[in-house]
Amino acid sequence: MKLTVPQESLAKALNIVSRVASSRTTLPILNNILLRAENGQLQLTATNLEIFIINSINCQIKTDGVVTVPANLLTEFITNLPKTNITIENIENKLKISAGNYKSVINTTPNDDFPNIPNGKTKTKLEIDSKTMKSAVAQVAITASNDTTRPVLTGVYLHIFEGGLYMTATDGYRLAERQIISHDGEINTIIPTTTVSEVVRVISDDIKNIKLEISDEQVSFSVGSVNIISRLIDGKYINYRQLIPSKSENRVTLDKSEFIQAVKIAELFARESAESIILKTNSANQTLSVSSIANEIGENNSEIEAKIKGDGAITLNAKYLLAALNVIDGDEVKFDFSGKLAPSLVMGKNENYKHIIMPVKS
Amino acid sequence: MKLTVPQESLAKALNIVSRVASSRTTLPILNNILLRAENGQLQLTATNLEIFIINSINCQIKTDGVVTVPANLLTEFITNLPKTNITIENIENKLKISAGNYKSVINTTPNDDFPNIPNGKTKTKLEIDSKTMKSAVAQVAITASNDTTRPVLTGVYLHIFEGGLYMTATDGYRLAERQIISHDGEINTIIPTTTVSEVVRVISDDIKNIKLEISDEQVSFSVGSVNIISRLIDGKYINYRQLIPSKSENRVTLDKSEFIQAVKIAELFARESAESIILKTNSANQTLSVSSIANEIGENNSEIEAKIKGDGAITLNAKYLLAALNVIDGDEVKFDFSGKLAPSLVMGKNENYKHIIMPVKS
Repeated sequence: MKLTVPQESLAKALNIVSRVASSRTTLPILNNILLRAENGQLQLTATNLEIFIINSINCQIKTDGVVTVPANLLTEFITNLPKTNITIENIENKLKISAGNYKSVINTTPNDDFPNIPNGKTKTKLEIDSKTMKSAVAQVAITASNDTTRPVLTGVYLHIFEGGLYMTATDGYRLAERQIISHDGEINTIIPTTTVSEVVRVISDDIKNIKLEISDEQVSFSVGSVNIISRLIDGKYINYRQLIPSKSENRVTLDKSEFIQAVKIAELFARESAESIILKTNSANQTLSVSSIANEIGENNSEIEAKIKGDGAITLNAKYLLAALNVIDGDEVKFDFSGKLAPSLVMGKNENYKHIIMPVKS
Repeated sequence: MKLTVPQESLAKALNIVSRVASSRTTLPILNNILLRAENGQLQLTATNLEIFIINSINCQIKTDGVVTVPANLLTEFITNLPKTNITIENIENKLKISAGNYKSVINTTPNDDFPNIPNGKTKTKLEIDSKTMKSAVAQVAITASNDTTRPVLTGVYLHIFEGGLYMTATDGYRLAERQIISHDGEINTIIPTTTVSEVVRVISDDIKNIKLEISDEQVSFSVGSVNIISRLIDGKYINYRQLIPSKSENRVTLDKSEFIQAVKIAELFARESAESIILKTNSANQTLSVSSIANEIGENNSEIEAKIKGDGAITLNAKYLLAALNVIDGDEVKFDFSGKLAPSLVMGKNENYKHIIMPVKS
């Protein structure tokens, strides 16, 4: 392998790819990045076995070749070099890298042990606007579970229902569902939450669309010149639609930032009581009261002007409610609940996003 | 106690003071902040026993009084309130705080157990320009030791020598000395590094000068309306001046940012070898070579153009050298050394700051 490549494009590609290179010692090759020079391109690949990230950049190749080197060292080294052309040459298991007066030698590892990029048979192709993808992941991924004993809930559920493509996640205490686009056909996959987060991370401003190719066991996202291939989570997603309240006894319509401020303040006094705060509607005054009590420390009550339908109260986890409010689009929030036991529903003006929070027993 | 105060000035004062309120459980009162309303001012005090921070702000007082309340809760609560007038009233061990529709009650603790502000007999008064103070602390505090078995080295040594006020710190491997101002008289104190860092933290752009009052056992810094009182470290500082090289066999004069870049890159390959990098002068070529070797991973060499006096080599800790270069003023660095065993000296154009680094044995 012998090639010349501009520092800026190599540094950018390395920073995108190397993040998934792990430092687990059971399989040291996963620390490495695979460099493949052929057809006038340098292809960089890193993987943690769950996700592969592949990025190809243009360069001037004198001799083709394949090597692997430690991902973090190469990335940090190239990132710190001046913005000039970099020459890379592999001689007898040593990668010689030079840029002006900076010269380094990095020992290589043969690529024989590097995992093969999986290649499943594509069953469905799909294109999603990158802004929509970003906002959907931000709104949904926060409610995915961390509990690996129920793998299905650690993913986001991408599926088609009645002509719409939906993304859903739940940890059992709260659930978020976002309708992404209208779409026919059949999609029914559970994607690891880390995968969709990685996809969103590599979306730069110049990327308009993201292409998905879904097969039985894997999904491939094409984001510009970056390709992210991930295994799918095996299993059947829970039948969650019955949990979304279709009607409610109480509806509160109010200004989002005032609601956030009151919940933030109530949360300060709720740390002793497992984040429990009490929301109470007053239809006569058209106010929502947000309160919390900490026996040792004190108590708090805020009254917010709101459009109120029905008198009632519910106890919620303040952190869950804040997380929902922080990803709602727009200035207005609709908050629906029906007594102290039924799930509550948080929505913005646009009802394509539904965030359900189970009440805390009180 | 009953008073009204604007949210912004109370939030600012709380954020300055409450940082030293610790959460050590052996003395729970130190979690609290002392509020004292008298003479048209609200005085806020917090302490970790080593440092007291006191800040007085103007307010409208109806009734004088003294209480203590949890520092973090009060600070977070007031910080999250809207920018309006806040009314605070103490009724039967409960501090009632209201701002518009936000109402809270925080349980108070009597102030009997709150430590008294120490009051030593001032022996020396001094004024230092706040910009000079900021830069001196940034340059010197980084070389103070964390090793509490030698308390003297955990502080910065503020002293007068031949008509100049100096600040010095050393951890035994490196030493930094900054001449602050010309000054006569007698000062010979060791101030905890955390204290000078706190002083620098509260310097805002509108503060021109800092006033010091030094007594036998304590030092008081007045920074605008904020007063920081700290105990001094007991003991005699080491006689360090003999360690500063007065002449050298090798002098390298070079561009600071190029030097930083080469050391940063060499550091990447020095992580296996306890951060050791080798600096070598070549007077014929007028270049400095910066190199490092990692047996397993690879090696690195950079050549930098420099004004060179004398041929020689020295091995240094890359992190120590980077820390020094990052606090040198100006674009030019002078680097002096004399063989592999003698201390090296790093200076900017202005020689009022000297940074000494001991070589690594190689």
